[in-house]
Order: sequence, then C-alpha cells, then structure tokens
Amino acid sequence: MNPFDPHSISSLQVPHIIRLSNNWASLSLAERTEAFIRLTRAEANDFFLSLKHHDQAEIILSLPEGEQRLWIRLLPPDDLTDVLQEIPSEQRQLILEQLDTPIRKEVLGLLAYQEDEAGGLMNPRFARLRPEMTVDEAIRYLRKQATHVETTRYLYVLNHEQKLLGVVSLRKLFTAQSESQVQDLMRTSVIKATETMSQHAISELFSKSSLMAIPVVHKSGEMKGIVTVDDILEVVQEAATEDIQKLGGTEVLNEPYLKINILPLIKKRAGWLTVLFFGEMFTATAMAYFEHEIEKAVVLALFIPLIISSGGNAGSQASTLVVRALALREARLGDWWRIFVRELAIGTALGCILGFIGLMRILLWPSRLSIYGEHYVLVAITVACSLVGIVLWGSLCGSMLPFVLKKFNLDPATASAPFVATLVDVSGLIIYFSVASVILKGSML
Amino acid sequence: MNPFDPHSISSLQVPHIIRLSNNWASLSLAERTEAFIRLTRAEANDFFLSLKHHDQAEIILSLPEGEQRLWIRLLPPDDLTDVLQEIPSEQRQLILEQLDTPIRKEVLGLLAYQEDEAGGLMNPRFARLRPEMTVDEAIRYLRKQATHVETTRYLYVLNHEQKLLGVVSLRKLFTAQSESQVQDLMRTSVIKATETMSQHAISELFSKSSLMAIPVVHKSGEMKGIVTVDDILEVVQEAATEDIQKLGGTEVLNEPYLKINILPLIKKRAGWLTVLFFGEMFTATAMAYFEHEIEKAVVLALFIPLIISSGGNAGSQASTLVVRALALREARLGDWWRIFVRELAIGTALGCILGFIGLMRILLWPSRLSIYGEHYVLVAITVACSLVGIVLWGSLCGSMLPFVLKKFNLDPATASAPFVATLVDVSGLIIYFSVASVILKGSML
Repeated sequence: MNPFDPHSISSLQVPHIIRLSNNWASLSLAERTEAFIRLTRAEANDFFLSLKHHDQAEIILSLPEGEQRLWIRLLPPDDLTDVLQEIPSEQRQLILEQLDTPIRKEVLGLLAYQEDEAGGLMNPRFARLRPEMTVDEAIRYLRKQATHVETTRYLYVLNHEQKLLGVVSLRKLFTAQSESQVQDLMRTSVIKATETMSQHAISELFSKSSLMAIPVVHKSGEMKGIVTVDDILEVVQEAATEDIQKLGGTEVLNEPYLKINILPLIKKRAGWLTVLFFGEMFTATAMAYFEHEIEKAVVLALFIPLIISSGGNAGSQASTLVVRALALREARLGDWWRIFVRELAIGTALGCILGFIGLMRILLWPSRLSIYGEHYVLVAITVACSLVGIVLWGSLCGSMLPFVLKKFNLDPATASAPFVATLVDVSGLIIYFSVASVILKGSML
Repeated sequence: MNPFDPHSISSLQVPHIIRLSNNWASLSLAERTEAFIRLTRAEANDFFLSLKHHDQAEIILSLPEGEQRLWIRLLPPDDLTDVLQEIPSEQRQLILEQLDTPIRKEVLGLLAYQEDEAGGLMNPRFARLRPEMTVDEAIRYLRKQATHVETTRYLYVLNHEQKLLGVVSLRKLFTAQSESQVQDLMRTSVIKATETMSQHAISELFSKSSLMAIPVVHKSGEMKGIVTVDDILEVVQEAATEDIQKLGGTEVLNEPYLKINILPLIKKRAGWLTVLFFGEMFTATAMAYFEHEIEKAVVLALFIPLIISSGGNAGSQASTLVVRALALREARLGDWWRIFVRELAIGTALGCILGFIGLMRILLWPSRLSIYGEHYVLVAITVACSLVGIVLWGSLCGSMLPFVLKKFNLDPATASAPFVATLVDVSGLIIYFSVASVILKGSML
C-alpha cells in the first residue's frame, strides 16, 4: 500500500467503517459487495486501501468491468501486482488490459518476480537525485517528484545509467547548506537487496538496519525499486501464522480460518492427521509385541497414557522452542550440538521431577494394594525410571528433529507437537516395557 | 531506534560486522564485550544501533561509567527508555544521572508508561507546524526541526496549547502552492492512539491504516508523541514468539533460547509439564476403573495409544487454528457458535476418515486372528466407532477451549497442543471403554 497517499490518513475512525472492517471476515461475498457499494466514494476509497490484497482482489472481481478500472488505478504498482497475483490468470489478463500502457509495462515487469522475493515486493517509484545537484536544486526537484514516489525519506542518487551511487536522507538534505552538492552529502556504502533476495532475508536486513526502506539493485548496479518496512510487516505476520499452523499439525491455510471453505479445510487437516495416524499405528504393533507382558501384569497398561504423553509433552516444548529460535535466527544449524547438550541436562532434570511425582503418586495412593497389587513398589520404580528415560528422550527428539529437517532443506516447523508426540509414543512404549522387563523380572513378569 | 539517523545507513554490510551480528547470540558476555571494544568507533556506532534493546543494555552495563554516557546519548529517548527497562532499577538510577536534565526529564516521563502501551512505545520528538503558517514558512521551519525529530513524513499541526488540530503529509506540503496556509492543507480527521492503548491495538491500527506513524494524544487533546511502524515490527515478532511458545506448552521465555540460563529454562518448562502430568494422572485413574475390562480383553489395551493420540492431534489442530485466528482478530468471541458448527462437521469428517483406516487396519491385518482373537471384527468396529467419537470430541474441545479461556480473560494461547491432548486423553479413554462395553458386551466383556 502507499502510505504516503493522502487517503491513508483516512476516515477509518468513522464508527460504521470500523465496524465493517472488523466484521469483514465474517461476511459472505454477497454481503461484502453490498456493504462496499453502500459506502460513499471517499469512504470506499479509504476502506479499499485498508484491505488486504486478497480482499481487494475479491472486490475487484465482484465489480462490473467499467468499475474495476477505477479501483485498480487507486493502487500503486507494487500493490497492484500483489493483488493481480491473487486473481486467476484468465481474469488477470482482462484486468491488465484496462491499464494504461506505461503502468501495464511496470506491472508486467513486477509480475515476473516471485511474490516472496525482493523483486516481487518492491515499488519501482522512488525519489531520485543526480550527484551534481545542489541542495536547493535537489529540494526543488524533489517537490516535483513528491506526488508519485512511495517515500521521500531516502533520496537515491543515480547516474545516467540508473546505477545507484549513494543515498541521502531527506533530513541531511534539509539541514545542509543550500549550495552543497548532493555527491558531497551522500553516503556511498548503502545497504541494498538484490531482486531475488528472499522476503525473510529482507526482513532480517530491516530489523538489523532499522531502515524504513531498502533499495533493490540489479547485479549490474542499476537500481530497480525500493522495499518499504510496512510491506515487511505483513510478511512477518504471515510467516508467523504459517509457522504456528504447521506447529499445530496442519498444512498452512493461506486464508483466514473463518473464510476458508469446509472441504479444503478438511483436506488440509486430514493429510497430516492421516500421516500421524499411520505413524501412531506402530504403537498398536509395539503393544501387540508386549501383549504377553500386559496379560501377565495388566497394571502396566494403566500407566501407558501417562508415560507416553509426558514424553510427547516434553518433546513438544523442546521442538517448539527450537523451531522458533531457528526462525528468528537466534540459533543456526551449527548450534545443534550446544542445544543437544542443553537438552540433555534439561531433559534429565524434567524427567527426574516427573519421575519423582509419579513415584509418590503410586507409593502414597490410598488403594495402592488393591489396584496395583503386592508388587506396587516395583511398579512405582518402573514408572519412575521410565518417566526419566522417556522425558529425556522426548526432549532430545523434539530438539533435534527441527535440525534434521533443516539439514534436508525441509521446513523445521514441520516438527509439530503432534509429530513429535507420535514419534515419542512409539519409542516411549519400547522404553517403558524394556524398563519393566528388567525391573519386574522374577516378580510380576 | 531512530531510522532517520545517518548512522542507520550503516557499515553493517562490512563482512566482519555481519558475521559478528550473526554470531552475537552464541557469544558469551566476555566475548561480546571484547568483540565490541575491538570495533572502530564508526563500526561500533552502527553495530550498537542495530542491536536489540536487551543487548544494548548488556553492553552499556559491561562498560566503565565514563564510557556509558557516550552510548546512552546515541539513543533517541524512546529507545533509551526501552533499554533502561531492561536494566535493574539500582543501576538504572546511576545511568539516569548521567543524562542531561532535559533528556532525563523526557525519559522519566516515558518510564512512567507501561512498556507495552502506546505511551511506552512513543517518541516525544515529532515534526510540528502551526496552522497559520504558509507552505514556504512551514518548509523553512521544518528544515530547522529535521535534525531532532523521528520523521518528517507526517507533520502534526498543533495550537499553542499543544493540542493536535490536524496532520499534513510532507508530500502534500511539497506539492502545494507556496502561499497556501497549513490549515487549508491539513486533514482534520486523524487516526490517533491514546497513551494507554495496547501495543496489540496499535499494531492493528497500523495494519488497517497503512500509516508509517501514528500520533499519541492525551485525552485532553494534547499531543504527546508518535509511534512509528518500525517499533511495531519488533512488537509483532515478539507477540508471535510468545504465542508460539505458549502453544508449545512452555511459559514465555522472554529471552532467546540459547541465551536463557538452564535453570530458569527448566523452571519455565517444569511448571506446565507438571500441571499436565497431574492432569494426565487421571488417565491412570480412569484406566484403573476399567482394569477389569482390560483383564478380560487385553486386546483393548493395544489400541489405547492410537486412539487417544488421534483425539489429541485433532484437538491440537483445532486449537492452534482458533488461537491464531483470535490473535489476528480474524475471529471474535461472538463467533464461537459458527466455529462450533464448523468443527462439528470437520471433526465428524476427520473421525470417519481415521475410523475407516483403523477399521481396515484391523480387518486386513495378516495375523489378525492370532493377535486380536476370534472377535476381531467386533474389535475393529469398536476401534472405528471410538475414533469417530474421539476425533470429533477432540476437535470440539480444541476449538472451544480458546474461547473459554478468552471469556475468562485468560490468554487463548494457553490452549496449547499438550494441554488439549491431556484433556482429550482422559475423556478419550472414557469414550473408548464405553463404546467397547456396548459393542463387546456378551462376546468379549
């Protein structure tokens, strides 16, 4: 969006616009179109500009062709490109034809980039100066450009071949002597992005540099556009949403929960749920292997859910923390060993805590003799030792799995709580029954 | 941070600075101080400004008192306030004393606000104009202010009592006639924040309005400062991290995973893990209640992990999606009924899918007769019916729990995957054994 646009200081605080904006997600398409048409032109302008690209696309498609033109013209080229990417390619062509030739050329150029790289995020309209201009000339020149550039905060100094020579902040220009030349004020070491830089790398550049805009430069040195921090805000939100959804064990929805239709939502959830179900089937196989032990000591079965889910919970904690640390680049692939050592200590400590509680639970339970039998002390020791082993094992699995995924170029966020829990369930049963067969041998087994 | 500062177009692209910046999280305090001291003054400036508040505080505390002054003066008042909030109050006092009186007053004023509300985020230095100025006067006046305000993108028009009358964009000023008056150019309906507005509400204002800065106004109408979108970027990241950590079943760390010490990390994880463990203990109680059934039909025990974890997985999906939708305000408290109905349909569908797979798994298993016994068809039907019930139940619990938490003013993100799984485990066992007692009555039970 173009925040420099006078529209952006908008009438959004008018109560019924705010209400509409808040309820938008819960309205049907027909209700939305109707509500939109009922707005005054000025309200509709503001409201349209405040919408996300997905919603803007929806409105444009719902309008008659003559009206579409009005709205697509309101958008600066980078936003228009994002909106067009939300529109199926047949209809996209029809909309492109409604644009004036120079803008169409600009938009077609931007459409060639991936949506999630610098080229796809950038706005080709930025404030430019020539190196030999004086400060007064530069300010006059700037006043001419001001209407159609995205920001005048940073002024980019280009030569005749459009190569980026340096950058001057408006502040510096404002506070300099009128006769100074731009080339003496500009900073020549400039933080810049290439067209193919990923949105993630750019958001890192932003948070490290605290710039409000970063120039996008072709490898020839030619400047192509700027990416502004407000575009990145949406990117950061979206990336977090995707990670959260993956960590919850679903595919990424790409649409608000209440807007996505039921059938695709079932599809996105059934996929992982089925995979996990197949993984979890190994528990039935493992249990069948120990059927004999269970028959002899039914009391062992009582603690199965308690034990395996504690391992899963510990694993889910570890994987979530590591996945987020990797996403924020607080931890890198090479840190796996340090994290392994940490989790070794933490897993042991947590295992001991739960093991102790488990031990006490059985030893002090009022009806321990009637439920757990004469060997209840041995059962308690079995449960406690298994808990130590399984919680430790869960912490190690949960913390290492994201690294394994990343190593194989898969998304670490796939190491969701349900995924780790399933992994730990199967191995947890084996740990539990192995511990039991050692401790209970000769008494119950 | 002050992105208008000439420092912000920095030497961060110098390779060893980038390397240092990337490795920072993994260095010890001593290594950090040493690396920092070894930088040239210009590099150190850039590097210091690129750090997060927490790291800036750490550096300041590690320097001798004479040096501290140099660095705290580099920071604009809003950032300095954030840094001081990271410093224990005894040392904070010593640092405050090193400030010049007017700045100390400004910082003390900001310290009075909560860190996470508009007052705590705002910068009191903004560009101001008087309504009766002409465009040329305004530009001249602006050139004087440019060095010490955070942005000149928006110019705030105040009367003599510092009350906010309206706002003009620099673009509008630039493109207006030289003799026009500011009051004829300004927009009087302004999006604004109160000092006590939460950071969440502000980030929503930003994403709806696509402004780069929002004025903070006291209820008397007096303008106090501005919040800029780059400050919100950090807030949005942090909020997502907190939600992710809670959803993974840990307390919020508030520090990077690799930086927090082992002991506090164990504490933050043991809390929830113990609570979940106590919850999970009810599974042992429930199982003890059905001990008789298990003794008669040990085969029932084999499917316990498979069945309860499927319910947990379905619940974790539903709770994660609903928690994120609530956080992004895509869904509101009042939507609970619509979501209940959706999850009723989705849970049934998912339950039928898994139930069918479970049925086939038992009916077609090669050694079905020897493992599951002569009544294997009935066992298969029991497992399938239980899966439908439990997956449906998990989806409903997972989707409604965040609403219940929110209703009682608790954070919906507490409805973590492990929490929902534990809840569903206990009730899942009851469903499973109830279904079994109906279907297997007279044959196995």
